Amino acid sequence: MNKMKNDLYLRTLRGEKVERTPIWVMRQAGRYLPEYREVRKQAGDFLTLCKTPELACEVTMQPIDRFGLDAAILFSDILTIPDAMGLELVLEEGIGPVFNKPVRSEAQIHKLSVPDAEDDLGYVMDAVRVIRKELDGRVPLIGFTGSPWTLASYMVEGSGSKDFRRIKGLMFESPQAAHTLLQVVTDSVISYLKAQVAAGVQSLMVFDTWGGVLSTADYKVFSLAYMQQIVSALKSDEMTKDIPVVLFTKGGGPWLEMMADTGCDGLGLDWTVDIADAKARVGDRVVLQGNMDPVLMNTGQQQVRDHAMLVLEGYGQHEQSDKGHIFNLGHGIQPFAHPDNMQALVETVQGNSQQFHKQADVTQTND
Amino acid sequence: MNKMKNDLYLRTLRGEKVERTPIWVMRQAGRYLPEYREVRKQAGDFLTLCKTPELACEVTMQPIDRFGLDAAILFSDILTIPDAMGLELVLEEGIGPVFNKPVRSEAQIHKLSVPDAEDDLGYVMDAVRVIRKELDGRVPLIGFTGSPWTLASYMVEGSGSKDFRRIKGLMFESPQAAHTLLQVVTDSVISYLKAQVAAGVQSLMVFDTWGGVLSTADYKVFSLAYMQQIVSALKSDEMTKDIPVVLFTKGGGPWLEMMADTGCDGLGLDWTVDIADAKARVGDRVVLQGNMDPVLMNTGQQQVRDHAMLVLEGYGQHEQSDKGHIFNLGHGIQPFAHPDNMQALVETVQGNSQQFHKQADVTQTND
Repeated sequence: MNKMKNDLYLRTLRGEKVERTPIWVMRQAGRYLPEYREVRKQAGDFLTLCKTPELACEVTMQPIDRFGLDAAILFSDILTIPDAMGLELVLEEGIGPVFNKPVRSEAQIHKLSVPDAEDDLGYVMDAVRVIRKELDGRVPLIGFTGSPWTLASYMVEGSGSKDFRRIKGLMFESPQAAHTLLQVVTDSVISYLKAQVAAGVQSLMVFDTWGGVLSTADYKVFSLAYMQQIVSALKSDEMTKDIPVVLFTKGGGPWLEMMADTGCDGLGLDWTVDIADAKARVGDRVVLQGNMDPVLMNTGQQQVRDHAMLVLEGYGQHEQSDKGHIFNLGHGIQPFAHPDNMQALVETVQGNSQQFHKQADVTQTND
Repeated sequence: MNKMKNDLYLRTLRGEKVERTPIWVMRQAGRYLPEYREVRKQAGDFLTLCKTPELACEVTMQPIDRFGLDAAILFSDILTIPDAMGLELVLEEGIGPVFNKPVRSEAQIHKLSVPDAEDDLGYVMDAVRVIRKELDGRVPLIGFTGSPWTLASYMVEGSGSKDFRRIKGLMFESPQAAHTLLQVVTDSVISYLKAQVAAGVQSLMVFDTWGGVLSTADYKVFSLAYMQQIVSALKSDEMTKDIPVVLFTKGGGPWLEMMADTGCDGLGLDWTVDIADAKARVGDRVVLQGNMDPVLMNTGQQQVRDHAMLVLEGYGQHEQSDKGHIFNLGHGIQPFAHPDNMQALVETVQGNSQQFHKQADVTQTND
């Protein structure tokens, strides 16, 4: 394996002192890019794009080539695991994900089993290997999964939901069945993430898109406990113990302390969280990733530059006791975003964050 | 005016020590009730129901008659003000509110003016008067409004939104125009709430349904500042200064301290907030209202009873320094809820909350 040319993202996640703030953007390979829309059209549908390693590689590389971001993220979907479990994922533009065979009975839950990551989800591992080869050490590759709660929500609701009454109904009325479901999903996630690491991803992220719809008490028991299992499993395995893990619960601002307690390396912050406040609460324990409002990417370049500076200033000076900051949006970039705004964002962070790294001794582990 | 038979809700909001926890439920007059669906069918459509004082009164009374709740809330919609401004509200079942004439230009914003509350919104005031007469002092009547940010969001988006990119685009790109819009809406809200009080409501609630989609910095400037104007205007007017005001920002858990700083009397909590934590933060300054997950009302009676107890225990003993607690759900009751569960909820709170009121000397101002 070649030595990495830009390992700023990984050094930051290891808590090392760095020369500037790294940046990547959730959904950076996506519909706002004309070159993505071109490949997407070629593929025919979204799932074919995910399941064709060469095409997944092509779109993964697009934002790296165009903007020079500091990390690449595997192009895939959070719902690959339930699809591999036989729920038949359908992804239609404008409608969102739908399962042809949602989980609607306890009998179905007891029939679910952990997919074989290299067999049933081999297309993901193939994509990782192709992308790693294509990246050739330019920047690290991030692998990811949906959180158990988020996957279970989609599996039971059969699609997105406004009120989550099906999954919450299961949780409130048949908590044991809900836990059985969450456990098989968690076991699947652990196996899936380990296989991603074996295939070549250098960092991991867990997207808990729907944890924020829970009460604090239910979040602990039905979402966080399973993310804890994932972190513990990864940190106790020789192969994965040094791979940084970032947890992101949308709407999880109130729970940062307990999320940091899992032993993860970083926390994703949505845009509603005040990053200065988050830093004061957990910034000495975990790297913070985020958190500009994604809607800004649909406005003008000046607004993007101004608000990116507000996030950098919000985190402020990187002191010795601070774990660090990775710039990102507070949620995925939207289809309406202007590619020029992404350019402005990357330039702002890469060109103006040095001033916030003056207080710390920089550890250069590379070059 | 007759002496009030059950003024527990008002005594609680005045910070008096009471004998048990009062309960009302957001959207307590709603589709989960068969008798509501009957009147709704009779009316033809939702807006006709709102605009016909006798029918609005009938559905307002239904949950009071059936369950013996401790407060009635005016049956109306949060979007009456923009409708009166000429945006033409259409409310269709399953689709949600839509404006035929959304605000899509700065020129439109500058043409907006404050509706006359007794003229353009006279049907609301008529409903208040009819309901007060019908209530005949049984329980207090709550009036309400949408928050300026929430109303402006609907006005600019033209409907609900997933990403709020239109209103946020205005906020980020033309903040002055956004403030002009928010100001005319705020002036309208103040005039509207004063007219509701003049007509007879005995308590007020501001629903900030969409404040939670903002960053902390933007929430302060674009939502909270205008709710502050409303509270200040009401508290400095002889007619309204003693009318309790409750603010509710869905997703506003992180901002309870600054919401309490407005000088409001109570804060609504959504179900994601830990009520014990909220009490520790602001319970000595404001009454807390909430906050059971509304999805529980779609499950079984035992689940409802158990979780209602968890909320009561979460607030815990009412000490002398605690302002108090009003039981409610963390958001509106859903159409799928079972009426029997509402009965179980009311019985649980009215029959089991006395044990949490033992530490405080009860001030009986009535009977």
